[in-house]
Amino acid sequence: MLLRLQRVRELMEARGLDCCVAASPDNVFYLTNFANFIHERPFILVVTKIGAPQFVVPRLEIPHVRARAVGDLELVEYPEFPAPAGSTWADALRALIPRGARTGVESTCPLMVHDVIPGTRVPNDVIDDARMIKTAYEAGRIAYACGLCTDAMRALFAGAKPGRSLMQTAPELTGMTLMRVLRDNPVTNMLATKLQAVFQPPSVSHDPHNFTNVAMAMTEGGPHVGIMNFVVNGYDSEIERSFFLGKVPEAAKRPFEVMMTARRLAFELTVPGAVMGEVDRRVNDVFRSAGYGEYLLHRTGHGIGVTGHEGPFLAEGDDRVIEPGMVFTIEPGVYIPGVGGFRHSDTLITTERGNVSLTEGPDSLEAVTLPVS
Amino acid sequence: MLLRLQRVRELMEARGLDCCVAASPDNVFYLTNFANFIHERPFILVVTKIGAPQFVVPRLEIPHVRARAVGDLELVEYPEFPAPAGSTWADALRALIPRGARTGVESTCPLMVHDVIPGTRVPNDVIDDARMIKTAYEAGRIAYACGLCTDAMRALFAGAKPGRSLMQTAPELTGMTLMRVLRDNPVTNMLATKLQAVFQPPSVSHDPHNFTNVAMAMTEGGPHVGIMNFVVNGYDSEIERSFFLGKVPEAAKRPFEVMMTARRLAFELTVPGAVMGEVDRRVNDVFRSAGYGEYLLHRTGHGIGVTGHEGPFLAEGDDRVIEPGMVFTIEPGVYIPGVGGFRHSDTLITTERGNVSLTEGPDSLEAVTLPVS
Repeated sequence: MLLRLQRVRELMEARGLDCCVAASPDNVFYLTNFANFIHERPFILVVTKIGAPQFVVPRLEIPHVRARAVGDLELVEYPEFPAPAGSTWADALRALIPRGARTGVESTCPLMVHDVIPGTRVPNDVIDDARMIKTAYEAGRIAYACGLCTDAMRALFAGAKPGRSLMQTAPELTGMTLMRVLRDNPVTNMLATKLQAVFQPPSVSHDPHNFTNVAMAMTEGGPHVGIMNFVVNGYDSEIERSFFLGKVPEAAKRPFEVMMTARRLAFELTVPGAVMGEVDRRVNDVFRSAGYGEYLLHRTGHGIGVTGHEGPFLAEGDDRVIEPGMVFTIEPGVYIPGVGGFRHSDTLITTERGNVSLTEGPDSLEAVTLPVS
Repeated sequence: MLLRLQRVRELMEARGLDCCVAASPDNVFYLTNFANFIHERPFILVVTKIGAPQFVVPRLEIPHVRARAVGDLELVEYPEFPAPAGSTWADALRALIPRGARTGVESTCPLMVHDVIPGTRVPNDVIDDARMIKTAYEAGRIAYACGLCTDAMRALFAGAKPGRSLMQTAPELTGMTLMRVLRDNPVTNMLATKLQAVFQPPSVSHDPHNFTNVAMAMTEGGPHVGIMNFVVNGYDSEIERSFFLGKVPEAAKRPFEVMMTARRLAFELTVPGAVMGEVDRRVNDVFRSAGYGEYLLHRTGHGIGVTGHEGPFLAEGDDRVIEPGMVFTIEPGVYIPGVGGFRHSDTLITTERGNVSLTEGPDSLEAVTLPVS
């Protein structure tokens, strides 16, 4: 936590900020290890140049914060929401901002929080930016979650057969994983743990966010897409695989191979020094030159950390440069109505020497074509 | 949906707004039936005086929106986030706001959305305010979810015995409920369904948000607190019960009775015409005059609807007047370290003639003292 606080303060210094305010539960978790969900009672963290960060919390939650928070924190309580004028969360927050301070405010800051901050307010995602480079501890937590994803995908493949429905596989895979999480982590925080283990059959795999029908089932052929996204004690991880049962339809062979070419290029290009938007453009060019430009729905990859989708982005329009210690998904995909969706995803970390994948699984067409007994 | 849109437009008219912008997933769900979780790709709804609401969505999610949204909507897509300048979500949003409009902006509106709205921006929770009075459809959905809560609490009581752990009961109760939800609602939306079925043993019940240890188990005596909070297809519900196993400790008898007195008064006072803060003050006075003022942690109750905690609030500091069609939890409680937490919660709806509880369960000391076989 100290390392992270230090990094945030270095960025504050570089950007001429005296103070920054975090209302995003993700940014609060990053600096405190305290997970909350958004409801009407705000939790607001104030970081100034020196001293323990100050944390405005509802009185009701003080023991909860003490049980979960890590590192030095000064707790500033307010009585039950909304509370009479003069003793509200807004009064508590206002009193913490140093007179005349330039305060960095998150781009996701709720308007009501922004509006009560006195002094000069500067839109600046100083904590989000600090989060982009992982500490060794964070890399370890993400690697652990990635191991669980890898094992769950293996279990999905082992049990795959025509007729298996999402309603059957999802509770089995999340149940199995949760038991392991609880055994490995005696102080598991369920508010910071969320397991998503799903698949799409060929009929909907061209529409990557479609889980409208939980009764949908595997069928012979493909492409299916299996998806494991596990947040474990606040750290997220992802693996995804296109797969086939028994046979590969003729129309699926070429898009699968183009996706594999794009994927190999994405792994090769995602290294320190590369410009993120440029990686995406070159990977998209693989699809475009194969005639699949109109079937692109998403970017090459996204950052992952205390959330499952966060900056930096391997996406056209993101002109930042890749640095060592960033964690990305690599998941170029193509979605052809009537044929299906083609996407493998892995989570990798960049290093001085290139990158290392934290998830692993079969990826060649033979390896993801599963026998039907 | 049309009824809700009409109510929002009436409030816009009364407040002199030409337009309002919703970025809150709860407000978007309320007006579209489309549930999303917050990530970096914004979903933003623009409501003007006439015509279908306009909905800015990522291209990737267009089929998902079409599958779930209800009512007339004009979809305005943007390419994959962050996207090159000129084709971002912000560009799409800016183009939709009528020239010179006075636009209502939610108090939870992310700063980045607020900052790109042209014209006059007026902080105004017009949709949140419309949500306070439930339509008949909403009341029906909430009553259905309340029935599931009632049954799950009955099941918790039926299986209660010393040694039963949270790790055992929680998956059983949520599993049982989920099966029923899927059977009753063939088009269940898992993004809008969240089942929480937990309890606290006497050792932590004085600290109402403490679920640090999932291995914690029921013991002889009490007070335990059982908690069912079920969001089912976007509508929330809650029942909570203090309970005892086998025997009631002497020190628990008086606080239980004081809580019951406060609870009876809360049911009596929560009727149209009453001022919310005044209800809370009078209920809190029951605890204060019994000498328990220092053990109060929260208000008498809160609104419930498309979220589990929302306005209006039966809380000191909320000076609004209760109207028919509001849904509240009634849950006065007292938390005494070394003795435990005392709280029953029910979900009620106010009517022209008073109020009706949508959850039901035993509440007297005898009825919540369960036999230990």
